[in-house]
Amino acid sequence: MYLKPPSGFRDFEPKDMILRKRVISALENIFLRYGYDPIETPVLEHWEVFEGKYGKEAETKLMYKFKDPWSDKWFALRFDLTVPMARFFSLKHPSLPFKRYHIGRVWRHERPQKGRYREFWQADADIVGSPYPEADAELLELSIDAMLKLGFKNFVIKLNDRRILRGIFEEKLALKNDIEIYRVIDKLDKIGYDGVRVELNKLGLNKRAVDKILEIISREYNVTDNINELIDEFSGNTNVEKGVSHILDIVNVLGFKRKYVTFSLNLVRGLDYYTGPVWEIVIKDIGIGSVAGGGRYDDLIEKYAGTSYPATGTSFGVERLIDAGKLTGIFKTDKITFTEIYVLSMSTKTFKISWEIARELRAKGFFVRVDLMRRSERKQREYASKKEIPILLIIGEKELSTNSVTIYVRKTGERLTIARDELIEFLRKLNKDLYYDK
Amino acid sequence: MYLKPPSGFRDFEPKDMILRKRVISALENIFLRYGYDPIETPVLEHWEVFEGKYGKEAETKLMYKFKDPWSDKWFALRFDLTVPMARFFSLKHPSLPFKRYHIGRVWRHERPQKGRYREFWQADADIVGSPYPEADAELLELSIDAMLKLGFKNFVIKLNDRRILRGIFEEKLALKNDIEIYRVIDKLDKIGYDGVRVELNKLGLNKRAVDKILEIISREYNVTDNINELIDEFSGNTNVEKGVSHILDIVNVLGFKRKYVTFSLNLVRGLDYYTGPVWEIVIKDIGIGSVAGGGRYDDLIEKYAGTSYPATGTSFGVERLIDAGKLTGIFKTDKITFTEIYVLSMSTKTFKISWEIARELRAKGFFVRVDLMRRSERKQREYASKKEIPILLIIGEKELSTNSVTIYVRKTGERLTIARDELIEFLRKLNKDLYYDK
Repeated sequence: MYLKPPSGFRDFEPKDMILRKRVISALENIFLRYGYDPIETPVLEHWEVFEGKYGKEAETKLMYKFKDPWSDKWFALRFDLTVPMARFFSLKHPSLPFKRYHIGRVWRHERPQKGRYREFWQADADIVGSPYPEADAELLELSIDAMLKLGFKNFVIKLNDRRILRGIFEEKLALKNDIEIYRVIDKLDKIGYDGVRVELNKLGLNKRAVDKILEIISREYNVTDNINELIDEFSGNTNVEKGVSHILDIVNVLGFKRKYVTFSLNLVRGLDYYTGPVWEIVIKDIGIGSVAGGGRYDDLIEKYAGTSYPATGTSFGVERLIDAGKLTGIFKTDKITFTEIYVLSMSTKTFKISWEIARELRAKGFFVRVDLMRRSERKQREYASKKEIPILLIIGEKELSTNSVTIYVRKTGERLTIARDELIEFLRKLNKDLYYDK
Repeated sequence: MYLKPPSGFRDFEPKDMILRKRVISALENIFLRYGYDPIETPVLEHWEVFEGKYGKEAETKLMYKFKDPWSDKWFALRFDLTVPMARFFSLKHPSLPFKRYHIGRVWRHERPQKGRYREFWQADADIVGSPYPEADAELLELSIDAMLKLGFKNFVIKLNDRRILRGIFEEKLALKNDIEIYRVIDKLDKIGYDGVRVELNKLGLNKRAVDKILEIISREYNVTDNINELIDEFSGNTNVEKGVSHILDIVNVLGFKRKYVTFSLNLVRGLDYYTGPVWEIVIKDIGIGSVAGGGRYDDLIEKYAGTSYPATGTSFGVERLIDAGKLTGIFKTDKITFTEIYVLSMSTKTFKISWEIARELRAKGFFVRVDLMRRSERKQREYASKKEIPILLIIGEKELSTNSVTIYVRKTGERLTIARDELIEFLRKLNKDLYYDK
């Protein structure tokens, strides 16, 4: 009967949505604080927009490509928000720097598994126009603020620069085409060092080269201290020097926030379009992949715009953040409704009164439900209780005759009767106590 | 080069998004006030979920149907938010009444024209579980509140009940299959009475029947007074009686808000699944189609759930609302950035200071930009001006030596220097004056 969504796609119930909205609005608020403005693009693009941007595996195995039912054109659902932004930028040519955020879904035909879906949400911030480390630093500082605002403490930003690896490969292995190797290294978390060795062998590299690559990516450097060792070892290699100096400049701008950043030679990112610094945010000790990642892609926009524009960006995986937050206990789906007040209707006689009170409360901004099922008082109470609506208003014969309202507060079990004209003020105070996030 | 989105699809720049966010958040706030909770569903569904729900034309000409690239299954992009909700409900069986809102995109392969897009946003509120007019009335009251909150004044809700037309057709024309006729009447706004006559002829109806249908749909009744004439004319017809009585009950619950409602025998709605009351919101005197519409669909959920659940819902067209608001002058895209403050960097020496001030302001919740382009002071000023950022902060040598900040307010042209430690408090006050909607 196809009641379930297609594999890897999901429905979200109110309790999921309430948490998701909290997470998304925290991210959005941080983007705004850093001066990013929102854009939106279609969920689908002409296939040609995506072609040649992400790498062969993505294009052939992961993208939802389909034929427009009314023409010979091919469309695909967007694979990320970066490429649509590059197209958007090249069409509109906004003034520089162009700083935009975009929170929306993307589609990848991955094998569905814990924390990995085929339809998922990304929250991206990007800067077009600046080639400078300040731009990358801003994105890292923004990322740190976002993680802290969401409540994460035990996280680290792994930072690398693709030019460093490229330089090392040039010096040590005389390798020119490094993209294929990056794609293998990117799987390190999933397949481990042994798996990387197998895959590198498959690329046709000799044993010496494979050994060297494994040695290099297992190195750990402390970004604040001994990254200069790299310069010493590879002095004279322009790529290594550029990469290291870019990273040192980023870290310098970060100031005291550098404590969240680690330099990781094995961090490469899987997509083709990165050209310089790349980073990922990892939550320690929970064995979940990265929750965010990004980097510089100075050559991507040229493919659309004809001329070159430096660009850098970062992307949060909304599902990853939520799964990580649940695992670490900072996120809970314990709120199942936004509704604050249920106004009981005791009889057909008081239905009109309940409706009027609901109307008055709604006009003041409260979130209110009334009976729509012509149910008994008991059934209404059961429903309000099942839905965990925090406040119940009762207007029976007694309240009617004394022009008062009885209030029941679920959390405390408190029950009290107050004058009708004090209701709004009373509920405002009550609400302030009950809600932290309104 | 495929820089433009596919025909009927659009990009939204920050200035569009800022308006869209205002409209969407107003709608969302009203949904919440009435006790609706959010859900989300995938953008695509198995084709079988949609099959037989909207009518032949929709299924064959309007839906984005495509084959899953990795299986023999057919998918389609969602055509509305009602059918996905019905599937969701049948899968999850939440307690009744189930009141959900859903704001998201849908896709229809219409001919692109002013106000009509192939990818557009709907904002829906639905109630499952109640067969009573109170439920429909709640949705109409919610709709009125939403229109008023958005700033519309000159609107009307056209209300009808499909059972009334069905009853009239039974009595006058001995017609049983009324769906085809509804679909023709639904085009009245687009093709006029003459066009409706042509299309009805095509259905094979005789001249007498066509004349009668045209006479009936051109009748105007005042919902508060003379709707009972209909009952007199068709007394004894169960369908007419049920329809009229349902409408009178709705209007009774609406109380003084009934003034926004008109009874319109020619309002039918185009989709197959409606079974009782139907409505549309029309803005007067701007010649744009309806901005919202809905109705009761008591038989739809049974197709998924096996058992019958009464249901009713309403749907706002976000693009229609925005286009109507622009036409009537209540909406403008005059705000081009959310950014509130630009902190000028006067030299490499003061860059660090600017960054620190930006950091401090961001931590306090302000929306702040700093230079990322190593630009001259003049170039930075030009950029801030082009982006219409309302406040400029200047920290030059003078300010550095006196531990002060110079503030330039774009709107008033005012320029003043204040002590560094009074900055936050001062900007808070200033912001309150500059922004109404923050």
